[in-house]
Amino acid sequence: MQRVLIVGGVAGGASCAARLRRLSEAAQIMMFERGNYVSFANCGLPYHVGGVIPEESSLLVANVAKFNNWFNVDVKINTEVVAIDRAARKVTARDGGTGQEAQYEYDALVLAPGAAAIRPTLPGIDLPGIFAMKTIPDVRQVKQWIAQTSAKSAVVVGGGFIGLEMAENLMHLGLDTSVVEMLPQVMPPFDAEMVEPLHAHMRAKGCKLHLGDGVAGFEQGAGGKGLVVKTQSGAAHPADLVMLVIGVRPEVGLAKSAGLELGPRGGIKVDDHMRTSDPHIYAVGDAVEVKDWVTGQPALIPLAGPANRQGRIAADVIMGKEPSKFRGTQGTAVVGVLGMTCASTGASERTLKRAGLAYEKVYVHDGKILGCQATGVVAGVEKRVDVVAMCMQMGGTVFDLEEAELCYAPQYGSAKDPVNIAGMAAANIVRGDALYTSWNGSVPGALNLPLSSLRKRMGEVPAGRKLYVYCQVGLRGYYATRQLLLAGHDAVNISGGYKSYKDFKASHQLQGGAANGAANGAKL
Amino acid sequence: MQRVLIVGGVAGGASCAARLRRLSEAAQIMMFERGNYVSFANCGLPYHVGGVIPEESSLLVANVAKFNNWFNVDVKINTEVVAIDRAARKVTARDGGTGQEAQYEYDALVLAPGAAAIRPTLPGIDLPGIFAMKTIPDVRQVKQWIAQTSAKSAVVVGGGFIGLEMAENLMHLGLDTSVVEMLPQVMPPFDAEMVEPLHAHMRAKGCKLHLGDGVAGFEQGAGGKGLVVKTQSGAAHPADLVMLVIGVRPEVGLAKSAGLELGPRGGIKVDDHMRTSDPHIYAVGDAVEVKDWVTGQPALIPLAGPANRQGRIAADVIMGKEPSKFRGTQGTAVVGVLGMTCASTGASERTLKRAGLAYEKVYVHDGKILGCQATGVVAGVEKRVDVVAMCMQMGGTVFDLEEAELCYAPQYGSAKDPVNIAGMAAANIVRGDALYTSWNGSVPGALNLPLSSLRKRMGEVPAGRKLYVYCQVGLRGYYATRQLLLAGHDAVNISGGYKSYKDFKASHQLQGGAANGAANGAKL
Repeated sequence: MQRVLIVGGVAGGASCAARLRRLSEAAQIMMFERGNYVSFANCGLPYHVGGVIPEESSLLVANVAKFNNWFNVDVKINTEVVAIDRAARKVTARDGGTGQEAQYEYDALVLAPGAAAIRPTLPGIDLPGIFAMKTIPDVRQVKQWIAQTSAKSAVVVGGGFIGLEMAENLMHLGLDTSVVEMLPQVMPPFDAEMVEPLHAHMRAKGCKLHLGDGVAGFEQGAGGKGLVVKTQSGAAHPADLVMLVIGVRPEVGLAKSAGLELGPRGGIKVDDHMRTSDPHIYAVGDAVEVKDWVTGQPALIPLAGPANRQGRIAADVIMGKEPSKFRGTQGTAVVGVLGMTCASTGASERTLKRAGLAYEKVYVHDGKILGCQATGVVAGVEKRVDVVAMCMQMGGTVFDLEEAELCYAPQYGSAKDPVNIAGMAAANIVRGDALYTSWNGSVPGALNLPLSSLRKRMGEVPAGRKLYVYCQVGLRGYYATRQLLLAGHDAVNISGGYKSYKDFKASHQLQGGAANGAANGAKL
Repeated sequence: MQRVLIVGGVAGGASCAARLRRLSEAAQIMMFERGNYVSFANCGLPYHVGGVIPEESSLLVANVAKFNNWFNVDVKINTEVVAIDRAARKVTARDGGTGQEAQYEYDALVLAPGAAAIRPTLPGIDLPGIFAMKTIPDVRQVKQWIAQTSAKSAVVVGGGFIGLEMAENLMHLGLDTSVVEMLPQVMPPFDAEMVEPLHAHMRAKGCKLHLGDGVAGFEQGAGGKGLVVKTQSGAAHPADLVMLVIGVRPEVGLAKSAGLELGPRGGIKVDDHMRTSDPHIYAVGDAVEVKDWVTGQPALIPLAGPANRQGRIAADVIMGKEPSKFRGTQGTAVVGVLGMTCASTGASERTLKRAGLAYEKVYVHDGKILGCQATGVVAGVEKRVDVVAMCMQMGGTVFDLEEAELCYAPQYGSAKDPVNIAGMAAANIVRGDALYTSWNGSVPGALNLPLSSLRKRMGEVPAGRKLYVYCQVGLRGYYATRQLLLAGHDAVNISGGYKSYKDFKASHQLQGGAANGAANGAKL
């Protein structure tokens, strides 16, 4: 009889336990959870704060009884595994109530400890009213604080995915909400020009954004009422509530003290069968490093989807079901903020530059897709990114997007889907039919020629000079560029048109030269 | 200088003209359109009847002036090409206003004549108030009839995609609406069990469905007021308006009289460069037969997306841009009816049976995806089918769906997306971890064992017999089947659970034995 112990009972751990049982009725399966809840929907926590998910019980995907009855899994909640004796293959677990410790032997051990919210050591960080949030009890504290203090305003520190979801939900409660972010943009995985529309949208909806300004510390408000968030620029933002949403770091304490190997990003190192450096110990979820298969580099991807898949794979491997392996991640993610959707898969330009990948070269030569970002207030933004993500997973090119045969009826999009349009725009570049650039200059001094009269007025176009063509969004610019090229001029169309220029100008974030296939708010 | 003539100016023809000009400023491009409008949104017509698209001008993607000014294309509307002289490479075109004919020479000729609405020869078919609809003037007639007669009720003949859109729009106008369909189900490309929820949904919304009952003829209503639709079963359905939406047939008259080869389905035969049997004549859009790459057989696919792509490809080939070829179609399509979405890509079970493809064998051996259907009232149904369509296009398997890394945040779906769930369910079958069947028996006499007590009560399960397991939707049935298999029983889970059984029972359409991976309303 095989004994499998699982440390952590949320996404990866719970998926692993359920899958193990489906593969073996004989195995003895035990799952330890430090908190009081297993298998809860982490991603729903901000929405429960905002009341969008009104019932706490809706956050619970399963509970202890279900794991017992359905899956015959022995769940020990409020129980922390504090040590691993690898030689003897046993763990020491401490009951959070009694403080008593007990030892449990294993044939296979699965670590799914998750990640902890980062809480920086800043002056005043321990003042009441400053919260981080990872668990259901954390949410209760925040809700209680808002109710008890009749909070009217909030500062969210951190403009990433969860920070923005938090801001939306606090606004939903009627709080005057600001986001303070050290970087000059929200949503760091996105390239700057792709989140400019989101900045404008959030501000228009009444959310204050303080970008490019890190938090220096926290102080009590005047008369002991509320808090003040001080930033590095010297600004002071008063708030009744502060949410710290700076990011997470993998929970590797237990793994480290057991001498398991960690990776360069600080997560538990695993192979593609989710095995750690100890062949009897597996690790899954937010605590592990996985391979980003686009850049080929190790990455920390704290997302529920990959965690669930890794849990299933660890179970398969433990039960001898080969070949089951994790393909790596492409970092597909989406955030919805106040009605606008931003979705992304694969690498951004920034990531590619950091990774030193010759992305323009690859791009131009074979049309392989390395990443895609899309922003918009219409339905289906994230699903277009899903289609591209699927194409990327299968090794597809921009030509495959161009040819994709997708659903169309008037209420679901257009006969040329944005996925097709993005593919066409990029494929035109790859084939050399269209030359694109992005904004890096200024518009004053431009020659204004309507598309409909360009043929007649071709003589006015200066010869022997590089021509940069733009229109409002890029379509007529493309048509004009084709005419100019066919007339023998050296012309490039400026990707995204004047709209992108305006967004860029607004943010003073003009960046240079990289060819890309932006179209309809999507970027490949 | 190359002269290209295009016959037909809606989707494929208009796309071809615009693309030709982007590739050559020198070419002389002329486009003939029998009607008065070019490049209009065919798919929007039912929505204009219903007032959902209030302005007729919104249906016009482009007009004659735009084709002249932007693309330097000479458009002749209200002009029908009546003959092709292939030896002399010229066409004869007749002006619909003056009746005068003129001849035009070509180097390349593109036929994009579209398809005509089928109007069966039934008694009373020419009574006033019976309409088919393919053009903007057709819509005007219908709207005028409804207004002038203060129509209160309508019968839509034909329950396909456009018929159902028509029914929705007539209901939107407040008309008491019935659909009469010869087949026992609406949406013939879908398998029966996938549209049962749609039948229930439409009826619940107040739309009458008369299925399995073809139209026998039409009569004037009592006292000369309104119409009566008589069916083959002897029923009589009174209506103030009858819409004939039985389907379309390719417009091949011109091609046929010019001696061009037709295909087995009655469309113009083309190769994958959109060339007809005459090397100087191309054909695109609803009038041509294309290869269904799933079944390998010729198909008629009257959809805007493929027509546009074919138009672009014909232009590329004419201008010598090789290799540009049409990959064939997989028949991706969606319909939205009264809030429910039904989407499909690839082959249905019925199509596979008709094509004689060994789909179970293929399915079980390599997990290759041959088709997918999904039905639901939530957002994103059709986009899940798009993701599967992309996977199919790239030659993907159910394992690729299982592993797909897709966007997730609470408002956009679940961490295990329906695409993943469908992939998992199917992959479990392919791996032999789960045995599925579909409903073909009756439920009376079933043994009721709650999942949570199955382990304890395993002794009650009869030994040495084939066990069919079901639950409400299939999930707990899957868990139970795993327990029974691991306990040594011969057990299969019934796909789709009791919900599918009920739907089936309601329609008396019980069908036998084919394994499939239905999950969450999706079917692979």
